Amino acid sequence: MSDPVITLAKALIQRQSVTPEDAGCQQMLNQRLAALGFNIESLFFTDTLNTWARKGTQSPHFCFAGHTDVVPTGPEKNWLHPPFSGLIADGMLHGRGAADMKGSLAAMIVATERFVSAYPDHKGSISFLLTSDEEGPFVNGTTRVIDTLEARGEKIDMCLVGEPSSRHELGDVVKNGRRGSLTGFLTVKGIQGHVAYPHLAENPIHLSAPALAELSQTQWDQGNEFFPATSFQVSNINGGTGAGNVIPGELEIQFNFRFSTEVTYQQLQQRVIDIVEKYGLSYELSWIVNGLPFLTEHGPLVDATIAAVKHVTGRDTVLETSGGTSDGRFIAQTGAKVIELGPRNDTIHKVDECVSCDDLIALADIYEHILIQLLT
Amino acid sequence: MSDPVITLAKALIQRQSVTPEDAGCQQMLNQRLAALGFNIESLFFTDTLNTWARKGTQSPHFCFAGHTDVVPTGPEKNWLHPPFSGLIADGMLHGRGAADMKGSLAAMIVATERFVSAYPDHKGSISFLLTSDEEGPFVNGTTRVIDTLEARGEKIDMCLVGEPSSRHELGDVVKNGRRGSLTGFLTVKGIQGHVAYPHLAENPIHLSAPALAELSQTQWDQGNEFFPATSFQVSNINGGTGAGNVIPGELEIQFNFRFSTEVTYQQLQQRVIDIVEKYGLSYELSWIVNGLPFLTEHGPLVDATIAAVKHVTGRDTVLETSGGTSDGRFIAQTGAKVIELGPRNDTIHKVDECVSCDDLIALADIYEHILIQLLT
Repeated sequence: MSDPVITLAKALIQRQSVTPEDAGCQQMLNQRLAALGFNIESLFFTDTLNTWARKGTQSPHFCFAGHTDVVPTGPEKNWLHPPFSGLIADGMLHGRGAADMKGSLAAMIVATERFVSAYPDHKGSISFLLTSDEEGPFVNGTTRVIDTLEARGEKIDMCLVGEPSSRHELGDVVKNGRRGSLTGFLTVKGIQGHVAYPHLAENPIHLSAPALAELSQTQWDQGNEFFPATSFQVSNINGGTGAGNVIPGELEIQFNFRFSTEVTYQQLQQRVIDIVEKYGLSYELSWIVNGLPFLTEHGPLVDATIAAVKHVTGRDTVLETSGGTSDGRFIAQTGAKVIELGPRNDTIHKVDECVSCDDLIALADIYEHILIQLLT
Repeated sequence: MSDPVITLAKALIQRQSVTPEDAGCQQMLNQRLAALGFNIESLFFTDTLNTWARKGTQSPHFCFAGHTDVVPTGPEKNWLHPPFSGLIADGMLHGRGAADMKGSLAAMIVATERFVSAYPDHKGSISFLLTSDEEGPFVNGTTRVIDTLEARGEKIDMCLVGEPSSRHELGDVVKNGRRGSLTGFLTVKGIQGHVAYPHLAENPIHLSAPALAELSQTQWDQGNEFFPATSFQVSNINGGTGAGNVIPGELEIQFNFRFSTEVTYQQLQQRVIDIVEKYGLSYELSWIVNGLPFLTEHGPLVDATIAAVKHVTGRDTVLETSGGTSDGRFIAQTGAKVIELGPRNDTIHKVDECVSCDDLIALADIYEHILIQLLT
């Protein structure tokens, strides 16, 4: 394969950039961008290398966002091909990060090179926001770069995140938003005792069961055109000493909301508190807001993306907000319009991760057509 | 203290017979019983020494039952006096097993010596059933001895277990029965998945919550004159992988019934199954019947015990079936009438276990008066 997208993707895969390592990926990309006239800022926070690269200062300001880090491979012997080889077989480029998301990064770079070459006097400006901690704790990556930009008043108007959004065929799904994620840690207090003397104890499992039943049966909202209904799931529940004759003193429950734009996390927190207090529980409750929901409705960015997919692949794109979280949530909080478009995600985070070479080449075309529509 | 009850109790305490060790206790007791004409059988099962000693072959057959093993001391530095010293201070005999139940064993032996000496031609027969695993798994102790007796058709008519039954003053409480104990292990099956894709998973915690609420709110019976109402307690509940974004595939629930003579364990099992199935759960359920309930109503044994307490202490005894299990349950299953009477239980299984010397001396008098009433 001599296509420059594949060549670059393969070179990225061969760098073992397991979170939070960048392993030289960003330097490789930065050299390409610097050659196009981008101003490069390397922003290293604690253990994470980030890049903010921008060409031009005018509006509209279009940003490509992505990550150079990959998740661990697990035992390499379980892989059909060595996971950092970038080997091509049967038209598929193999390796950890092939689909998530070194292939997208290569397509973005090549698309930008072609666009700048073809339209040297394009309007607006183009930027790249790269991080090496998207797969990790997302503490020192995109969120810190965004803080830096916000502090100096630098705004992104439109952002395309290269996360692998496609389900069955390239471009069949574009994410135009994400649900919010809220985690709660509930500890219900009882009084420990011997099962033979229940009148001297208070069993927190018994006390909690009706509240847990109500929480798991509550309809939190109906969702809307772009979001499924908010969902509540208990992920962990633990109570008991292990002994069969002891009534435990505490019950610990961890739960998670994936929530739509129809409710706020504060409303969800209050409704949980109302239910817990309705049952008279003695409790402690703490929260982590993992991400706020965002939604990019129809407008120049969404319309250009849909048109580019149609132009290159002939396919009609479906807009969705399903799935987990991505760094798009941090960028959307600044007011930027954000969409996510990348290759098929059926092998990501698994052994034998791979991506279609044809899809990567087409993806570069799609990205280039988006730039043409928005910046010419 | 030169009283023979105290001397013997002290000698027993000085033998470090932590379950399943007997540490020579039974040999010491057997020598005393052999001197009275008891036939001694030592029954060693796997790791547990047991004694079956009997004098006479006639009815009524009265049995003293008890255990020579003790629970561990924990760190000895936490004890005011060394736990195997048998030290006497302020009228209290100190040490692990002083109240549970080496003091009772000493009182039984001395009471029997005095009774046999005073009434060499008493009617019926007297036996001792001693074990060294009452505090442990109760697998190779009383239950095996009872199996041996049953196999050869040897029946106990009446049995006094020396468990420390007294609450505030010696003899204030006699146990004339015990609740049954039934443990259940319920595994509720769901389908594991990612919290972001709840439609692809089934959360066993959510599925179980309403059933758990009903189980913990059910009135199983009303109890009766001798038994409190049957109680249900969940002792352990565990579900979840530890990760906050995974819907678990299984939920494990361990629970225990303490049940009266108003229900059978089979009825309780069926009612649990009915509730679990009412909620459509996919589940596995296994059971351990730890002990069946038993009750010894008014009759010669109970009446003699009440009269003996009144005669020696002036106190009116309360009959109760509360508390945990004891080896009395195994003996009662043969049809024997069983009661439990021993010293105060406020220090058992704790640091600084001790027993009143005066109470032990009075306990020997009570035991002797019971023998006089039943066997002369």
